[in-house]
Amino acid sequence: MSENSGWENPLRDPLDRRLPRIAGPSGLVIFGVTGDLSRKKLMPAVYDLANRGLLPPGFSLVGFARRDWADQDFAQEVHDAVREHARTPFREEVWQQLAEGMRFVQGDFDDDSAFEQLRATVEHLDKAQGTGGNFAFYLSVPPKFFPKVVQQLKDHGLSDAPAGSWRRAVIEKPFGHDLASAEDLNAIVHDVFAPDEVFRIDHYLGKETVQNILALRFANTLFEPVWNRSYVDHVQITMAEDIGIGGRAGYYDGIGAARDVIQNHLLQLLALTAMEEPAAFDASSLVTEKLKVLRAVRLPDDLGLHTVRGQYAAGWQGGEQAVGYLQEDGIAPRSTTDTYAAVKLGIDNRRWAGVPFYLRTGKRLGRRVTEIAVVFQRAPHSPFDSTATEELGQNALVIRVQPDEGVTMRFGSKVPGTSMELRDVTMDFAYGESFTESSPEAYERLILDVLLGDANLFPRTEEVEESWRILDPIEEHWARHGTPAQYPAGTWGPAEADEMLARDGRSWRRP
Amino acid sequence: MSENSGWENPLRDPLDRRLPRIAGPSGLVIFGVTGDLSRKKLMPAVYDLANRGLLPPGFSLVGFARRDWADQDFAQEVHDAVREHARTPFREEVWQQLAEGMRFVQGDFDDDSAFEQLRATVEHLDKAQGTGGNFAFYLSVPPKFFPKVVQQLKDHGLSDAPAGSWRRAVIEKPFGHDLASAEDLNAIVHDVFAPDEVFRIDHYLGKETVQNILALRFANTLFEPVWNRSYVDHVQITMAEDIGIGGRAGYYDGIGAARDVIQNHLLQLLALTAMEEPAAFDASSLVTEKLKVLRAVRLPDDLGLHTVRGQYAAGWQGGEQAVGYLQEDGIAPRSTTDTYAAVKLGIDNRRWAGVPFYLRTGKRLGRRVTEIAVVFQRAPHSPFDSTATEELGQNALVIRVQPDEGVTMRFGSKVPGTSMELRDVTMDFAYGESFTESSPEAYERLILDVLLGDANLFPRTEEVEESWRILDPIEEHWARHGTPAQYPAGTWGPAEADEMLARDGRSWRRP
Repeated sequence: MSENSGWENPLRDPLDRRLPRIAGPSGLVIFGVTGDLSRKKLMPAVYDLANRGLLPPGFSLVGFARRDWADQDFAQEVHDAVREHARTPFREEVWQQLAEGMRFVQGDFDDDSAFEQLRATVEHLDKAQGTGGNFAFYLSVPPKFFPKVVQQLKDHGLSDAPAGSWRRAVIEKPFGHDLASAEDLNAIVHDVFAPDEVFRIDHYLGKETVQNILALRFANTLFEPVWNRSYVDHVQITMAEDIGIGGRAGYYDGIGAARDVIQNHLLQLLALTAMEEPAAFDASSLVTEKLKVLRAVRLPDDLGLHTVRGQYAAGWQGGEQAVGYLQEDGIAPRSTTDTYAAVKLGIDNRRWAGVPFYLRTGKRLGRRVTEIAVVFQRAPHSPFDSTATEELGQNALVIRVQPDEGVTMRFGSKVPGTSMELRDVTMDFAYGESFTESSPEAYERLILDVLLGDANLFPRTEEVEESWRILDPIEEHWARHGTPAQYPAGTWGPAEADEMLARDGRSWRRP
Repeated sequence: MSENSGWENPLRDPLDRRLPRIAGPSGLVIFGVTGDLSRKKLMPAVYDLANRGLLPPGFSLVGFARRDWADQDFAQEVHDAVREHARTPFREEVWQQLAEGMRFVQGDFDDDSAFEQLRATVEHLDKAQGTGGNFAFYLSVPPKFFPKVVQQLKDHGLSDAPAGSWRRAVIEKPFGHDLASAEDLNAIVHDVFAPDEVFRIDHYLGKETVQNILALRFANTLFEPVWNRSYVDHVQITMAEDIGIGGRAGYYDGIGAARDVIQNHLLQLLALTAMEEPAAFDASSLVTEKLKVLRAVRLPDDLGLHTVRGQYAAGWQGGEQAVGYLQEDGIAPRSTTDTYAAVKLGIDNRRWAGVPFYLRTGKRLGRRVTEIAVVFQRAPHSPFDSTATEELGQNALVIRVQPDEGVTMRFGSKVPGTSMELRDVTMDFAYGESFTESSPEAYERLILDVLLGDANLFPRTEEVEESWRILDPIEEHWARHGTPAQYPAGTWGPAEADEMLARDGRSWRRP
């Protein structure tokens, strides 16, 4: 239950028993408001929430940046971003109401007077807009600025919630680049904000298909009985991108695919796929179960055989020539940063002992796709002739996270004809075809959750640290041994990754 | 293994490792060759088999009837039937080869000289066409003629296979109208033909989707673990027709829906759905397992509460007015024949104890559909709020036998949106979309099986008798109690059938 759940929005349909989750009186302060994320994702998400009637009438949006803007300039920026990127139609009356609560504070992060002005703005909004002292601070800034901003919030009394109200901090990844740095960062943030006041955004967890993993597993009867080592052969979790690093050289080089994707997105997907049923569908129960899984993750004994890193070389993608990673602007010519990473993990518990979880991610791969494939063992015995089943693969349940969101089940069926011949076929469920409701953007969901204080979809400190504990030995091994294997852009990664699975008698799905 | 399996057809692709099942030297004699079944199903099926290269070059087709036809007239009849009803394109060269083996024998069933001529024809074909003494006799005649025809075959030496060859009898339902008459019929047939020489056609068993039940269950890993009383709530087996009795008053009145459909088709579907894995995919292993299930079938204690019979009244169907059963031509005005029947059966074994199997069939129902719906129990516990799951039904796996052949799985999924709300969605597998191979007609498959001596898809004597043993007490109960409940044509049967399930807290699917 959120602390706002008793609050009544006059726009709410009193006959709707499904209780739309509507934020109570509140405001959002965005640091780094002139950045890409803010313009493409956060501003449109705020508008879409308002347009869906999920924000309170006096909701306030405060931008903080160095730009020399007046409130009106900021509002115009938001307006343009909304017009360009919002998911729902533009409605003038929604916009007008939202614009009334927009303010801009100009300043550097070490500018005390700017933070004083921010405090005055917040206090003014409480009176003018009825925000009730409830503010979330969204740090859409590089992590090196986290300590400063958090400290300033503390020094200027912004992190202290007035009686009966709340203050929350929202931070984006990377949450450190290894365990030690993550612990340092967490110490700084938690010196100012309590654990339940900190919301770490892993936007993957805001995706419908990711939330549906738990719905699939625990609201149904069919899947859970086979969701264990007695029936599952292995699990493949893939996040493939077709793009290269684009303009992100400064961020990406020295970080690499494993830190950028496996540490957060893929290990979270692993946790949701493998966890036990939570006692309830609330943040504390979920984190309990996810942590149990992450703590049970076992690294392979031989990291050289069961992990692979790669780096894309020049190649062809989508009919166009693509340069290699080392030729990208801003990349050190001898960089050993991984743009592809594949790891084999075990989970040491009763449910999963002996079942490998293969995780892989990469840039410049065959196509953009994220999916979880649960691949089942072959039937223990087949009463059919071996010729009947020679084309038959293994059953699989594939959760298609993006694109083409949905679920696919692969199973064997009789081929039409006068003999008994079996072949793999698929059953499909597609979100787009099954629901008239369109999926909210992950950021819509997550910003609303922050305002509601609902932490279900946000990784906790302990999960972040546990994930680094898993990844650190792999990164250390890679740092000591060799260099990334090259793979041509537009292919499915280095040959070493195929060999890694072939040694286990398995192969990667070509999604 | 069929006794013809070593035989090589020159048309066969030697590189095809999937061993097309091709009939060896043989011929087919059809009694009642001027009837509807022969023209619409049997003749086209023979041509389609020939066209697919599955018949031997000298294959012979002999018609037997009272009509005053020469061989050429018969061939012309087959030609017209093939042109009108065959599934595959007409090819002159295939037709010409097939036509060479066509003969017609004119006569009554009690005409000894006609059967002598039939014997001469068969012997002649062995020489002229190389049929090798192998002949199947297809009794496409009303059951009252079975004893006579069988006896004539015996008296004229036609049922005795020359050394190294075979003789087989093919009979169509009804296999009796109760246990006693079925036993009588079986005694007569088996006095002449050995059990493995008798092929009882239940054309439902020739359907791809029905054969796929065993493929689904036993070639896959996913389904069998939940295919039992621990997970299944109940099973519904439906065969609904939209048509009335048409011109079949003479056959149908006094027989009714339960004898016409439940005794054979639906109890066979029940057996395939519920049976244990056979030791091998051969006729003897299959009949062993099907018989075990049929013998374990338990009737409800109170037949008045757990069986329903109905009779269609006038109504509207497909936009047209339909007369009631009692107004159909040739129906006795006070007939109590059931055109709708629904029964609840139990299966007394470890796998199914306590799981009801609801079988229903009827004419003049909402639409033509045959399906098996395995409905699963609800999840034993839901970690989600009760408001999140209030629209959620039970998981189900539906085998769509006809039309729209395929498999549907119903399960719960998260509704897109910012709250956790669950709703039923479906995954579909459609034969038509998944295979380029088109499905052979059931009769193609079954005639080929007869020629190959493959009895997998033919119910044995014991199954027929076991099925009557199940149905007889129900028919006797109905004969002693009341009259069929009326239901308007175009609806889904009498209200009593809905009440029968409602008493168990369940409801029929509206397929």
